Amino acid sequence: MLNETLAAICPLDDEAIAAARALQARLTKPMGSLGALETLAVRLAGLAGACPPPIPQPAALAIFAGDHGVHAQGVTPWPQEVTAQMVANFVAGGAVVNAFARQAGVGVTVVDVGVKADLDPVDGLLDRKVRAGTRDLSVEPAMTRAETLEAIEVGMRVAEDLVRQGARALLTGDMGIANTTPSAALIAAFTHADPAAVTGLGTGIDSETHARKVAVVTSAVVGLHAEDPIDVLAAVGGLEHAALTGYILRAAALRVPVLLDGVIAASAALAAHALAPGSVAAMVAGHRSAEPGASVALGYLELEPLVDLGLRLGEGTGAVLALPIVASAVRVLHEVATFDSAGVAHK
Amino acid sequence: MLNETLAAICPLDDEAIAAARALQARLTKPMGSLGALETLAVRLAGLAGACPPPIPQPAALAIFAGDHGVHAQGVTPWPQEVTAQMVANFVAGGAVVNAFARQAGVGVTVVDVGVKADLDPVDGLLDRKVRAGTRDLSVEPAMTRAETLEAIEVGMRVAEDLVRQGARALLTGDMGIANTTPSAALIAAFTHADPAAVTGLGTGIDSETHARKVAVVTSAVVGLHAEDPIDVLAAVGGLEHAALTGYILRAAALRVPVLLDGVIAASAALAAHALAPGSVAAMVAGHRSAEPGASVALGYLELEPLVDLGLRLGEGTGAVLALPIVASAVRVLHEVATFDSAGVAHK
Repeated sequence: MLNETLAAICPLDDEAIAAARALQARLTKPMGSLGALETLAVRLAGLAGACPPPIPQPAALAIFAGDHGVHAQGVTPWPQEVTAQMVANFVAGGAVVNAFARQAGVGVTVVDVGVKADLDPVDGLLDRKVRAGTRDLSVEPAMTRAETLEAIEVGMRVAEDLVRQGARALLTGDMGIANTTPSAALIAAFTHADPAAVTGLGTGIDSETHARKVAVVTSAVVGLHAEDPIDVLAAVGGLEHAALTGYILRAAALRVPVLLDGVIAASAALAAHALAPGSVAAMVAGHRSAEPGASVALGYLELEPLVDLGLRLGEGTGAVLALPIVASAVRVLHEVATFDSAGVAHK
Repeated sequence: MLNETLAAICPLDDEAIAAARALQARLTKPMGSLGALETLAVRLAGLAGACPPPIPQPAALAIFAGDHGVHAQGVTPWPQEVTAQMVANFVAGGAVVNAFARQAGVGVTVVDVGVKADLDPVDGLLDRKVRAGTRDLSVEPAMTRAETLEAIEVGMRVAEDLVRQGARALLTGDMGIANTTPSAALIAAFTHADPAAVTGLGTGIDSETHARKVAVVTSAVVGLHAEDPIDVLAAVGGLEHAALTGYILRAAALRVPVLLDGVIAASAALAAHALAPGSVAAMVAGHRSAEPGASVALGYLELEPLVDLGLRLGEGTGAVLALPIVASAVRVLHEVATFDSAGVAHK
């Protein structure tokens, strides 16, 4: 499915873009007065190949969960069991992202792509476990190439299914204790940024833990000699990162906007970009995470986030917060009267 | 009603604030990981005097419309008739703010507090005209003190009615061709900022028009010797500015959050603050308008906007965009599981 997906990613439709620009100029508002929302709506018209593009609702959030062998290096104070516990919390509807999703009317799907625990089958949880957690990336490659491709396939299939079920926008979510460490390594690897500059405080760590985390990321990136994006993901990534990469790529192939959450999504977006630069056209940066690596990654992809409120939770919270803004931007092209139709004088 | 309103504005409830802070620390998320949303939810608990505070829905937007004598000075290329035409567009549901309001589930009420045209009675339009447009503030006071007080009363009563009808949040909206000029004058007057630094491009004007606008604002502020906030509003404000001042004050008195839109709302918020400094506790800055005066005013009030996307439309668009974010912040306190209840280990 990966080759077919990469081949299906095509450039924005110039005709739809031109039509959306022309429509923006006729609507009852001063030209440009909606700032970034005008640019966004025009781009989504180009993505869909239609003006107006579909209103991005219903929208679906997939939370990919996985564990990390690098947890053994003490890069976080949280016990590894919290990944599985939070998966149960998502399924029960008790996490922050569930509250945000109810507010925004977003459906939530939880995908176990690599949790290091046997999870009981339950509605709303997809068992797509590739492996019970990655290997320790500070010691050996986190995944084999085959495992990485399998996780990418999981993400692609989840995206495909959600869109088939009616989703008009896909949102990225993630859960995995220690997963800001592989994210930082991926960001440093793909953007060639200084590992120290992209390694943040994650869920909140002390300076000693942070120093250890920077050392782990630096050594992983220095020891990395892979060129192929799949090999980079395999060496220093995570199962949820690989799944998110596939999810993003499939959204792009289906010409459906994909709202990126925070630093984990941004690192997966870099992998997607490395595999198919055109996939960036489908990406909408939901928010600017407080993690420094997220800003480096978004800058590299030339994406401006919609929300910037100092969030650093993950789960998909920043993507869900941004959805109503994206929907509002698109609605303008559907619903706003023109100067002519409303009988409003133009300047 | 004004004296009663001012007297009813009380400080935030410390007990509810402490309860909200304690609750935030027990919810299944790293402490502080929701950034500005945690602070906001805590403040709204203090405003309501309850933890959790009410989810701010249903929410109501009031768009106060008025015309401006200073239009005669050529401060905008738009014809004055556009005010009345846009009022008709709001009532018909064809403006950008209507599309945003449908997306967010916000009710829209349009209030004619000073349009310089006879508007046909129609559902959704309240005729509260105090005067058919202000006088030219560059020549004489824009309003008498009595007119100003009457417009403030209009705003207070609209807020009162909307809350009685069930609104749990009030959003500010405005329409008035040329109304960024009185807004700039109010902001310069209340903050003592340089008039040139708070006078922006409004809906988009050329440099010659901008220079004329700066001159008008500068001369109005230089000639202003009023100390009383009502007299300042009367001298250089507008009818919608006065109505918004009353609307904001009444929201504060009712302990209901009031989401500010852009530069017009921010200038009215300064008047409200001058009359009752405690009213700032009820204000939530919806967005950062591209108008420079808006940032000066919000900085003066120490309010950080939730959305920053380069909008400069007015109508209430920035307030409506922010509502789902405010609701999401509050929902966390209602719906998110605690570490104990969800069986999630703490670090």
